[in-house]
Amino acid sequence: MRRLYFHRDSKRGIQITYDWLADELEELGEALKGNDKEATEKEFADVVAWLASLANITGIDLEKAAINKYNSKCPKCQRSPCQCKF
Amino acid sequence: MRRLYFHRDSKRGIQITYDWLADELEELGEALKGNDKEATEKEFADVVAWLASLANITGIDLEKAAINKYNSKCPKCQRSPCQCKF
Repeated sequence: MRRLYFHRDSKRGIQITYDWLADELEELGEALKGNDKEATEKEFADVVAWLASLANITGIDLEKAAINKYNSKCPKCQRSPCQCKF
Repeated sequence: MRRLYFHRDSKRGIQITYDWLADELEELGEALKGNDKEATEKEFADVVAWLASLANITGIDLEKAAINKYNSKCPKCQRSPCQCKF
């Protein structure tokens, strides 16, 4: 994703990339109300792509960030599966 | 992520999980305005985690969805790096 879009994303800047991501999340919300699984899958892909772009231009490794926080156990209760009482 | 939270996420349902995801995205937006890289990383991790949870309960493989759509080239212009004219 970095190779594909970094040159364009970094020109666009953080705020506008964030706004695109927020728009994609709304589109995903709409798709989830329908019954078209293929369309929903594509909206999930778009959200991941924009999230990855946003991480790239802020210099954050998205996969590493997720693994650091959620590596095999819940960061709150330290168990897997999570046993938190919300 | 599936093993960690699926039992809880599936009880919560799609709409409420989506709303949590939207809240996390707002928190990420706030973090991006600050200068705390570690906090921003954690917010990215939260967004990924909730997005993965939402995909799990809708029966979609998030990684596969992203690869299907963005596998090494732009889905619009079919090039890498992307050459689309927006």
